[in-house]
Amino acid sequence: MLRNELTELLKINYPILQAPMAGGITTPRLVSEVSNAGGLGMIGVGGMPANQMQEQIRQTKQLTSKSFGINLFVPEEFVATDEEVEATKEILAPLFKKLNIKQEDAELPTPQSKEKDFQEKVEMIVEEKVPVCSFIFGIPPKEVITKMKENGIIVIGTATTVREAMEVEKAGMDAVVMQGSEAGGHRGAFIKEVKDSLVGTMSLVPQAADCLNIPIIAAGGIMGGRGLTAALHLGALGVQMGTAFLTTEESGAHPLHKEAILNSEDQTVLTRSFTGKYARAIKNAYVAELEAYEAGFPMFPLHRSLTQPIVTAAKNQNNPDYMLLLSGQSTTLARKKTARVLIETMVQEASKLIK
Amino acid sequence: MLRNELTELLKINYPILQAPMAGGITTPRLVSEVSNAGGLGMIGVGGMPANQMQEQIRQTKQLTSKSFGINLFVPEEFVATDEEVEATKEILAPLFKKLNIKQEDAELPTPQSKEKDFQEKVEMIVEEKVPVCSFIFGIPPKEVITKMKENGIIVIGTATTVREAMEVEKAGMDAVVMQGSEAGGHRGAFIKEVKDSLVGTMSLVPQAADCLNIPIIAAGGIMGGRGLTAALHLGALGVQMGTAFLTTEESGAHPLHKEAILNSEDQTVLTRSFTGKYARAIKNAYVAELEAYEAGFPMFPLHRSLTQPIVTAAKNQNNPDYMLLLSGQSTTLARKKTARVLIETMVQEASKLIK
Repeated sequence: MLRNELTELLKINYPILQAPMAGGITTPRLVSEVSNAGGLGMIGVGGMPANQMQEQIRQTKQLTSKSFGINLFVPEEFVATDEEVEATKEILAPLFKKLNIKQEDAELPTPQSKEKDFQEKVEMIVEEKVPVCSFIFGIPPKEVITKMKENGIIVIGTATTVREAMEVEKAGMDAVVMQGSEAGGHRGAFIKEVKDSLVGTMSLVPQAADCLNIPIIAAGGIMGGRGLTAALHLGALGVQMGTAFLTTEESGAHPLHKEAILNSEDQTVLTRSFTGKYARAIKNAYVAELEAYEAGFPMFPLHRSLTQPIVTAAKNQNNPDYMLLLSGQSTTLARKKTARVLIETMVQEASKLIK
Repeated sequence: MLRNELTELLKINYPILQAPMAGGITTPRLVSEVSNAGGLGMIGVGGMPANQMQEQIRQTKQLTSKSFGINLFVPEEFVATDEEVEATKEILAPLFKKLNIKQEDAELPTPQSKEKDFQEKVEMIVEEKVPVCSFIFGIPPKEVITKMKENGIIVIGTATTVREAMEVEKAGMDAVVMQGSEAGGHRGAFIKEVKDSLVGTMSLVPQAADCLNIPIIAAGGIMGGRGLTAALHLGALGVQMGTAFLTTEESGAHPLHKEAILNSEDQTVLTRSFTGKYARAIKNAYVAELEAYEAGFPMFPLHRSLTQPIVTAAKNQNNPDYMLLLSGQSTTLARKKTARVLIETMVQEASKLIK
């Protein structure tokens, strides 16, 4: 009864996608467990080097024979002057001191290096025959979509407004994740400014459903059977969940990241202080201390290169005050269980509710 | 099958409340039509003088024998220096000129005058035995709640976070409207800052449902049967809809306000430029021209007194560029039909979807 056009397209039993969270959260164990339980596990790549990505794909294949997916960041233009970079380094200096780490001159990414990295990863995904590839931060070049589809890869876009979703459909992609304002992690907005594209899932999904022909995957605030049922009734054919899978036992998120979500109230914020791109996270000391400066930070992914040592050190030092605690708005619905139990519970709940 | 504890409490057939929109939208005709069709029509009072409110109640009673409701703004403390007021007048001056109206010295409200007005309205609602009274912008004083309940009036609070909802329940109110970030009109936040309380309906409702014992009414983004079904599955017992009723034939909204919603894409913004309190509205010239100043405007309802002549003149001159075009985020789902058809259609849709 949960089978539909989307489950058929993705070759899965239940219309449940585990969001491709970056930063070491989506371990091969998590991804494969989700797929083995009937959902679609997805590898979050983000800034991961290509060879590490290949390693993750291969490990995942060893752990599951089911369909799984991967996600790529579509490269965007970015630029920053030396002065901007220096000013940012000065603002970040006290945080380096606080964590007792050296602020060395990192090699900064360039649009060219990012483009090269992207193309390399596309090649590798095609070679490895990853069954599903989703994209965020824009529409990939036509050649990329064509090549993947020719190789039997299902291609999914990410949109935060109906207008963005229509671009995804026009580009020939197979399905679209509609990212509601509740969602944790980076905002996928690529046409409008983020503040103009913060549309709630309840509003976004039915409006998209009335305009699109490709299947809609609802994301943002969904944590279990109630959310799945609601999303399907709003016109989605499936859901993508990040936070709900982040706190599962198999997730590679730092234990204190999981704890922060499990213990939090409704206190997430949108911040660009970590990466230069707006992301929803739990407000900690890092966010509070940099709040006044965030509008002026360099663009993604340049800013991320400057802050990366802080976030990494915070993890190594078990200091949640300076970690990147990505989370959606439904924190109090998060539970510590296995991915399989999460999926089975929500399927049971939804089966009771759906006609 | 749509009957539940909430419909019993409110003595209505369907768990559908028409939001108490202020500014002349909720005419006795709209309110009574909603109630006659089986929902709960609600009178929006806002800054309306008490005698006009009484007139509206009496007219509504002549048009329906069914249950209906009313909404009051809980008075808040506010203060502004003469300098702030003068600075604001200067910023607004070009708009007065553009609309060719005089910028006279308005009599400004005081916390005392607002408190007196509130008490007077409470007395009147009790005298008139209005069946349901909801509140926004805070928790009314204990005596008010007690007096209303002793007189058989059902008392409803408004909350934008779980924490606010728990205050509503603790105060002994009968039900709570959970206002998701999608909702049009004023934000009801009264504990947290607005930007920290913009929680989407998909996230807000199930989290509230897990913490509260009183019935939850979901608001924000809901426009028809899909939204009603989704809200009920998330844990609400009913829905409150503003924008969906604003564009109905019986609504007293300015025809160009209705047109603006019916023709708009996903382009609402949160602005405090109209009243001094954040409200969701369609972005027009008024919003764009004052955007740079809005953080510095005086508090509600002081600022509203300063801008009222502009908004009124814009209406009289049929100029939507300077009207207050309140709207939720689901603009493309709005339709021009009668309130009865809206209710009947959504009940039919929901009946098909709900087990």
